Amino acid sequence: MEFEGAEAGPGTARPGGRTARVRAAVLRAAGDVLAEQGFAHLDLADIARRADVGKTTVYRRWGTVAGLVTDLLEDMAQQSVPRTETGSLLGDLTANARLVQRTLADPRQGPLFKAVIAAATGDPGTARALHGFYAVRVEEWAPCVEGAVARGEAPEGTDPHEVVRAVSAPLYYRLLTTALPLDEASADRAAAAATAAARAGAYVRGG
Amino acid sequence: MEFEGAEAGPGTARPGGRTARVRAAVLRAAGDVLAEQGFAHLDLADIARRADVGKTTVYRRWGTVAGLVTDLLEDMAQQSVPRTETGSLLGDLTANARLVQRTLADPRQGPLFKAVIAAATGDPGTARALHGFYAVRVEEWAPCVEGAVARGEAPEGTDPHEVVRAVSAPLYYRLLTTALPLDEASADRAAAAATAAARAGAYVRGG
Repeated sequence: MEFEGAEAGPGTARPGGRTARVRAAVLRAAGDVLAEQGFAHLDLADIARRADVGKTTVYRRWGTVAGLVTDLLEDMAQQSVPRTETGSLLGDLTANARLVQRTLADPRQGPLFKAVIAAATGDPGTARALHGFYAVRVEEWAPCVEGAVARGEAPEGTDPHEVVRAVSAPLYYRLLTTALPLDEASADRAAAAATAAARAGAYVRGG
Repeated sequence: MEFEGAEAGPGTARPGGRTARVRAAVLRAAGDVLAEQGFAHLDLADIARRADVGKTTVYRRWGTVAGLVTDLLEDMAQQSVPRTETGSLLGDLTANARLVQRTLADPRQGPLFKAVIAAATGDPGTARALHGFYAVRVEEWAPCVEGAVARGEAPEGTDPHEVVRAVSAPLYYRLLTTALPLDEASADRAAAAATAAARAGAYVRGG
């Protein structure tokens, strides 16, 4: 989402070119509106104004609010977050849980994630993009669990994706269904619970 | 949501009276629209038509779409679901997980829950009603965990609410962030994981 790189002709998708800069500005404006006001207030003409981009360009490129949120999710999926390797399953899952917790507790990111989840409930294309975003994140952290199985910390046949999802699940559930604080203690509890359940074999495939 | 009971004068809130019947018809129509089309398509005039109730009545009583969803959630909270007692923590939590899973996998209830969660992200009053709905459900099942602690199945100081939420969390997370099937195996896995984590002391308060 940076404004770096060389100029390029209009219509190209070269990173750093005009098209990339327009996309970055529009997606940043969309993220701002989602975080500040929620999905219901997203409006393409307003986004064009905020991004200082022609309305026609925004309508031609994204078409609908759902199309814009879909593209935002695809952009979010591409922003890699480095995985932490601590040498133990509990350590790795705690690092993951704290990353998710800090994101959801962040004053901009928390409302933004709520808004994209809400948007996905109403549009199949947005839902696919949301599923894609989470699939990428889960895939990035799955090697933590594979390493733990290799070290004998969790039984053979443990499903790494289920374990990684189990760490995020209580944090998202807390964010969406309660007014309870999303504090570090809830992150540590989510990681400890997923680790204990994994050790006990709760995530063994077909188990 | 039944149409039983004696007639009563307009404006009364006596169960079975006209006011109760109007409320039942309007909330049923609101639930239908939420389940079929999602939150973005909810419109008070359309609800009045579907419920065969005067538009003025609907506007006067519920005021806004957010007010209507809030009342729907308060009505849902009052519909008690009997808790299962099997004599073991795993048995009780499996019963709870399967109940949640069947609800979320149901073609009407699943989209309805997605829609009210989406609605709550955009309105503080709706969010409070949603939190109230889940607080009631969690409270209803907490005695399962208290019983397990009394029987020595989980350590003293285990937080019953955290354990009950841990059962639902992976099912909601699966529903909202993946396209994976919400099958009975995912319910059983959620219950087994929460039970194993509770036994290991992951939900001990201040732990």
